[in-house]
Amino acid sequence: MDQIQQLTSGLDTIWVVLTAAMILLMEGGFALLEAGFVRQKNAVSIIMKVFVDISFGALIFYFFGFALMYGKDVGGIIGTTGFFMGGDLSHIALTISHDTYWLFQCAFVIAVISIVSGAVAERINFRAYILYTIAMTGIIYPVAGHWVWGINGWLGKLGMVDFAGSAVIHGLGGFSALAAAMIIGPRIGKFSADGKANIVPPSNLPLASVGAFILWFGWFGFNSGSTLSATNASIGHIAVTTMLSAAAGCAACILFTMMRYRKADPPMVINGALAGLVGITAGCAFVSDAAAICIGAICGIAMVYATEFLESKQIDDPVGAFPVHGISGCIGTIAVGLCAKPDAIREGTAGLFYGGGFDLLGVQALGLLTVCAWGFFITWAFLKLIKLIVPLRVTRDEELVGLDVGSHGVPAYSQEEGFLDLQNLKNN
Amino acid sequence: MDQIQQLTSGLDTIWVVLTAAMILLMEGGFALLEAGFVRQKNAVSIIMKVFVDISFGALIFYFFGFALMYGKDVGGIIGTTGFFMGGDLSHIALTISHDTYWLFQCAFVIAVISIVSGAVAERINFRAYILYTIAMTGIIYPVAGHWVWGINGWLGKLGMVDFAGSAVIHGLGGFSALAAAMIIGPRIGKFSADGKANIVPPSNLPLASVGAFILWFGWFGFNSGSTLSATNASIGHIAVTTMLSAAAGCAACILFTMMRYRKADPPMVINGALAGLVGITAGCAFVSDAAAICIGAICGIAMVYATEFLESKQIDDPVGAFPVHGISGCIGTIAVGLCAKPDAIREGTAGLFYGGGFDLLGVQALGLLTVCAWGFFITWAFLKLIKLIVPLRVTRDEELVGLDVGSHGVPAYSQEEGFLDLQNLKNN
Amino acid sequence: MDQIQQLTSGLDTIWVVLTAAMILLMEGGFALLEAGFVRQKNAVSIIMKVFVDISFGALIFYFFGFALMYGKDVGGIIGTTGFFMGGDLSHIALTISHDTYWLFQCAFVIAVISIVSGAVAERINFRAYILYTIAMTGIIYPVAGHWVWGINGWLGKLGMVDFAGSAVIHGLGGFSALAAAMIIGPRIGKFSADGKANIVPPSNLPLASVGAFILWFGWFGFNSGSTLSATNASIGHIAVTTMLSAAAGCAACILFTMMRYRKADPPMVINGALAGLVGITAGCAFVSDAAAICIGAICGIAMVYATEFLESKQIDDPVGAFPVHGISGCIGTIAVGLCAKPDAIREGTAGLFYGGGFDLLGVQALGLLTVCAWGFFITWAFLKLIKLIVPLRVTRDEELVGLDVGSHGVPAYSQEEGFLDLQNLKNN
Repeated sequence: MDQIQQLTSGLDTIWVVLTAAMILLMEGGFALLEAGFVRQKNAVSIIMKVFVDISFGALIFYFFGFALMYGKDVGGIIGTTGFFMGGDLSHIALTISHDTYWLFQCAFVIAVISIVSGAVAERINFRAYILYTIAMTGIIYPVAGHWVWGINGWLGKLGMVDFAGSAVIHGLGGFSALAAAMIIGPRIGKFSADGKANIVPPSNLPLASVGAFILWFGWFGFNSGSTLSATNASIGHIAVTTMLSAAAGCAACILFTMMRYRKADPPMVINGALAGLVGITAGCAFVSDAAAICIGAICGIAMVYATEFLESKQIDDPVGAFPVHGISGCIGTIAVGLCAKPDAIREGTAGLFYGGGFDLLGVQALGLLTVCAWGFFITWAFLKLIKLIVPLRVTRDEELVGLDVGSHGVPAYSQEEGFLDLQNLKNN
Repeated sequence: MDQIQQLTSGLDTIWVVLTAAMILLMEGGFALLEAGFVRQKNAVSIIMKVFVDISFGALIFYFFGFALMYGKDVGGIIGTTGFFMGGDLSHIALTISHDTYWLFQCAFVIAVISIVSGAVAERINFRAYILYTIAMTGIIYPVAGHWVWGINGWLGKLGMVDFAGSAVIHGLGGFSALAAAMIIGPRIGKFSADGKANIVPPSNLPLASVGAFILWFGWFGFNSGSTLSATNASIGHIAVTTMLSAAAGCAACILFTMMRYRKADPPMVINGALAGLVGITAGCAFVSDAAAICIGAICGIAMVYATEFLESKQIDDPVGAFPVHGISGCIGTIAVGLCAKPDAIREGTAGLFYGGGFDLLGVQALGLLTVCAWGFFITWAFLKLIKLIVPLRVTRDEELVGLDVGSHGVPAYSQEEGFLDLQNLKNN
Repeated sequence: MDQIQQLTSGLDTIWVVLTAAMILLMEGGFALLEAGFVRQKNAVSIIMKVFVDISFGALIFYFFGFALMYGKDVGGIIGTTGFFMGGDLSHIALTISHDTYWLFQCAFVIAVISIVSGAVAERINFRAYILYTIAMTGIIYPVAGHWVWGINGWLGKLGMVDFAGSAVIHGLGGFSALAAAMIIGPRIGKFSADGKANIVPPSNLPLASVGAFILWFGWFGFNSGSTLSATNASIGHIAVTTMLSAAAGCAACILFTMMRYRKADPPMVINGALAGLVGITAGCAFVSDAAAICIGAICGIAMVYATEFLESKQIDDPVGAFPVHGISGCIGTIAVGLCAKPDAIREGTAGLFYGGGFDLLGVQALGLLTVCAWGFFITWAFLKLIKLIVPLRVTRDEELVGLDVGSHGVPAYSQEEGFLDLQNLKNN
């Protein structure tokens, strides 16, 4: 019997470690996606922000964030134990160790902050970004996460369901990204005096594409790994709905942009696949295959409209963080209230389409609204606060020359063939 | 006892989900490999085809393909149940769920169509490609696959063995690629009036290389995962033969091109590693380590000759899809008939070199011929059919300007440093 | 009971196969990292060396290396059985098969030689590199590895501990890299006549960055997989310390370069993360989370100083192989002697800081010195030997034009838009 327990615990541990590693690889995906979408002169600066996410994010979440999110609950509002992974965490009863659990959750928080990095690309001050990363991974995400996923969090107790984070990760991240993009303002030249959006082609679409494939790969870890147990009977189904929704989002964007723009639009297709992945994240364990396909397709098309909407409002989100994560996150969270199969979440609960009435749908809507509003307004507040310490934005000259050379002293790509005095060497 | 069953089922499920994810990541590998090998002006268009593969391919295989391939057999020819993953699939008795099984097979079919994408790169019409993808993933591959891998498929019943698909995946894909390349014809300027092949260097060899490394990684999932069971005693051996054959294909190409061209030729070396991987795919579970090394080395060298042969015949296969997948797929399938260790496949069966006579070899040859001929001729027929609906090829102008801008309206790489009116901004 | 054994063996096998695949993917990471760091004209040539590593390395280690490292011990000095994976290997008693064990170890040896490839980039002769690869994977690493990890190896018997290879992999690789860089000499133009180091910006920092993310991902396989058993209770902790140390190395480099250079320096930040990963490799299973953070931060900062030191000594190590692997490998190995938690290694043993005295620290220092000195001097000797057969260095002309075109006949990146006679086609 002990052997079986040992096997189970070992199996669950490698499952969580492997899927956590897959999620952490998504940082490479984010880096490529964003570096490919931005202008060449800012490609390194956005990657440096991803390094901030994964380094500062991990440490701050270790020091503070995890405790606020998963520590012993006070009033349904916040966790209070587990700082530096010490103290009483006995309420977390899993087959995996607490620190393994931390690793998995750490991969999640890093994803959240990476969402925001795209929306502020090409203009945020690096020091301001570090401070905001600390705020996001230390407070903003942990608090909202506690409400939904913490033991006794108030939204979770109300019955809100968000399997792997359409609301907690992507809704929160997307609305935080929106607030940040609005506060920091558009890139110089993005909008003409008459309000028209100017287009600059992405600097490196092959890089952006492979970023999307890596994200797609990591998402299998993200969604399936969220079972935290390798013997959970839903794992196969979760992976299947994840695949179908992503495929549907991507295919829908191909067809839709062929109709709307007379050509399959590469950046939209890339983001369409991601929108499908974001949309299924809340319901992957609870909805049918057919629903997964619908969710993905709707998210893909909604993403296109949302992108156009942002531009019409003169909000500059260089990589489409809000359309992909914010909008699809909302759709996915609400979709659970509509499409959850009877008893899939818990005995007696079903989505509206299965006769479950408005109970689940209502709490999903409430939770979504709360989490997104929290992300938007607290990000707004923190950025205002940070602005008192350092400028939020690089100088005009730095922006025009590009943040790579301006802030980090080195271009992303260099074709220099040799050293400074090489010309002389050749002539000799 | 129930606990052990649950553990086994859980273990098998995560094994299949993780390896399926690894295979799906291979799409990122294909995208990089192909984008790196083609000219810069077509780098995005080939990646868009990979997005078609993974999105349309997955959906069509879900709707139709899986049923034709793995549904209840009729006459050894075709499956008839399981459309939309519904209906009677009780004949599939695995420790994993049917939809988990679908996911793994879905990753396979996407690989097949991706093989073809390389051969038609830089000139196929995007709409025609979508239609062909539907044909391949809905009919061509599922039917051939049924013959070999479907329960009661006629080739499988005859005793044909193809562990992870040297014939079913790579032979079929490679010969389909050949037919497509021949029908669509060479790129403008590839062959001079005197029949000489003109060379244009690959646009981005670092991308192509990392594509190969990602494919190599995914192949461990491809071959080892094909056990569908994590307690299969062959898993370790499969991974080892996979590694050895790939290493041998790569090393052979390094040495052989150093002798033949006086320099290790990077595109050949990249394709040599892939040829080794393709070659071992049929026999990875059945042949010895020494045989794996020989198979890999032979595939690597044969690939070089096949590449030269295609050029001499004025067939234009921009990324070498046929030499890598078609030729190595054939070698690998036949190699099983020669090198299968006694009783490794089933009691009483062995390859020719182990005294098994011509029984196994004969059926391998018959199956290979059937599958490759099917792929070649049915692809030919489908493309002729598609040509009645949309042009197979982009216009001459589109091809000259490149498909990225011509068909998708955006270049792969842009060094534009700012927005349209940025110059003015600077001057102000 | 048999079922449990079968499950355990299956679980351990997939664990080792999956983590081995992750480590092998690190070759893609090395390729990107190095191709991104070197000048554009040498980007393919460095990747070709990684292909040599993974192909020749795997085969030679299969033929000879494994036997010398893990074969039956003679005198604590060398293994003597297991050539071509045949002969008596009964002293290796694992739940996984011998060839699965080989695969995992093979992934390790390939990492070692890849470390050296970076230090000799942009100037080594390709044939000389092949010969050195054979020496490293067939003799240099296996012998040193036997001393520490082979059954009855003399350093291991003395009590030296190196969980996943800070000394055996990174110390050895780093000091071999140093010797190679010194013998081959700096790149033309790297140092001015007055001794000043000239800087050329890395050719492709986005590629280098994603290389680092892939390496980070693979490291979870490297460290956690080194348990060789999926039910080892340390797996979660190993993954956590790996993550924390990498994050600390990266964050420390961000902050330190902001102070020292007034800007977060991208190449340093990339190498800082890797330094943190190298540093924790020896102690990941034995030290506390807090120690992991300290080790990572120290390694990150030491790497910056070491890079500056090498330049001041006019030693040219284009990608920082010695600062990252050599220095951090030393710090990590010594850190075990300082920070090993009581009884974590074995009953009664602890690091100096836990009251374990100088016993462990002494043997760690002795082992480290031995392994690094072996790597340095034997590499020196082998390169002198190789020089008798082929030149160690490309010609001056080849170096000036770049090794891609010079040695391999093809540039890494090509913007040629068509074939040789395309211009005519257009004009027609």
